[in-house]
Amino acid sequence: MASREKEILKEFLSSFPEIKAEEVEELSEIMPVKAFAKEAVIVQSGVQCQLCYFVLKGCLRQFILNEEAEEKTIALYTEGQAINFYDSRNLGQLTSSTLQCLEDAVLLVGDPEADVSLYAKYPVLMDVTRQMLEAELHLAQNTHARFVSASPMDRYINFLKDRPGLALRVPQYQLASYLGMTPESLSRIKRRIAQAERG
Amino acid sequence: MASREKEILKEFLSSFPEIKAEEVEELSEIMPVKAFAKEAVIVQSGVQCQLCYFVLKGCLRQFILNEEAEEKTIALYTEGQAINFYDSRNLGQLTSSTLQCLEDAVLLVGDPEADVSLYAKYPVLMDVTRQMLEAELHLAQNTHARFVSASPMDRYINFLKDRPGLALRVPQYQLASYLGMTPESLSRIKRRIAQAERG
Repeated sequence: MASREKEILKEFLSSFPEIKAEEVEELSEIMPVKAFAKEAVIVQSGVQCQLCYFVLKGCLRQFILNEEAEEKTIALYTEGQAINFYDSRNLGQLTSSTLQCLEDAVLLVGDPEADVSLYAKYPVLMDVTRQMLEAELHLAQNTHARFVSASPMDRYINFLKDRPGLALRVPQYQLASYLGMTPESLSRIKRRIAQAERG
Repeated sequence: MASREKEILKEFLSSFPEIKAEEVEELSEIMPVKAFAKEAVIVQSGVQCQLCYFVLKGCLRQFILNEEAEEKTIALYTEGQAINFYDSRNLGQLTSSTLQCLEDAVLLVGDPEADVSLYAKYPVLMDVTRQMLEAELHLAQNTHARFVSASPMDRYINFLKDRPGLALRVPQYQLASYLGMTPESLSRIKRRIAQAERG
C-alpha cells in the first residue's frame, strides 16, 4: 500500500480516542486501503458483491437505471461513510445499483471473513463500528424524514445544511436527481435563493 | 416486569444463535421492558430524550408538524426495529418529532449508561447490536433510494413488498403522508391496482 493512503488511514483511526496509538500503527499495516481514480466504477450493478467500503477520502455516487433507462442517483457518499451492498452481501442477490467515483478516492475495503478476525483481535473496532453505524443510520433516517416532509426548495436548503460542501462536489444534474427534481427545477430554486440573498 | 413481557423478550433474545441459553435467562431478568397502550405518546417533540427504544411487539409512528401545522409521518416502526432520538441523545438537542403507538406495544428501553455496563458484561450484545444496526441502515437507505427513484404508484407497491403486512396496521391517511402523497392519491392508486388485479 502506498504510504500516502496509509497516512490517511492512520489519521482516521487516530480520530477515535478509544483506539490506542499502538493499535493505530498495527491496524494501518493490516487494514486494506485502495485508491480509485475519478470516474472509476467500483461496483457494477448485476454482480455479486461481498465487499464493503468505507470512504477515507473522496466523493462517490450510487445510481440505478429506472424503467426509462435514466440514471437516478440514490446516494452520495463522502468521508466517514460506509458503503455496502447489503442484499448481495447478506442475501446473495445481485447488486441493483452501480457505485462510481465522482472524485479520486481512497477507500478502506472490507470483506466479511477478514472483518471477523479483525474484530476478534481488536474488540475496540466493534465499538467504533457501532458508533459509526449509529451515526450513519441517523443520517439515513434524517435524510428520508426531511425529504418526505419538505418542499423541493426546502429539500435543497436542508441538503446544503446537512451535507456542507457536498453541493460543490457533485454535477448538478446528479444532485437534482438525488433531490428528486429535474435539473431545471434545481436551477430555478438556486436562482430564487440567489435573488432572495441579494435582497 | 410482567411475565408476558419477559416471555416476549426471551423469545427475541433466543432468536440470536450467538446468545447462549443462560445469557438469555440472565438478560431477560435485567433488560428493562415496558408495555405501552395504543395511542400512547412515548416521546413528545420539544423535550430531551436520552433513552432509546427497541420494538419487541407493536407498531409505532414518528411524526413532525410541518409549517402548516399538519402532521407528517416520517417513520413507521415494527418488531425488530430500534428507535432513537440521535440529535437529542448525542448532541443534547430537543426532539423535533413525536413518537406514538399505533397499537399496544412492548418495547425494550435502553439508556446510555446502562447500555455501557450491559455491553461490558455481555460482549455478545455488541455483535448482535451491530448486526441489527446494519440491517436497519440497509432498510433506511433502501427506503430512501426507492422513494427518490419511484413514481407514487411504485412507491406504494415497493412499500407493500418491503414492509409486508404493515399497510394493514397503519391508518391510511398516515400511510399516505409517509409515502409523500395525499390520501386521495393513495386511494386512487389502490383502486387502480384492484382494477388491474380483477383484470
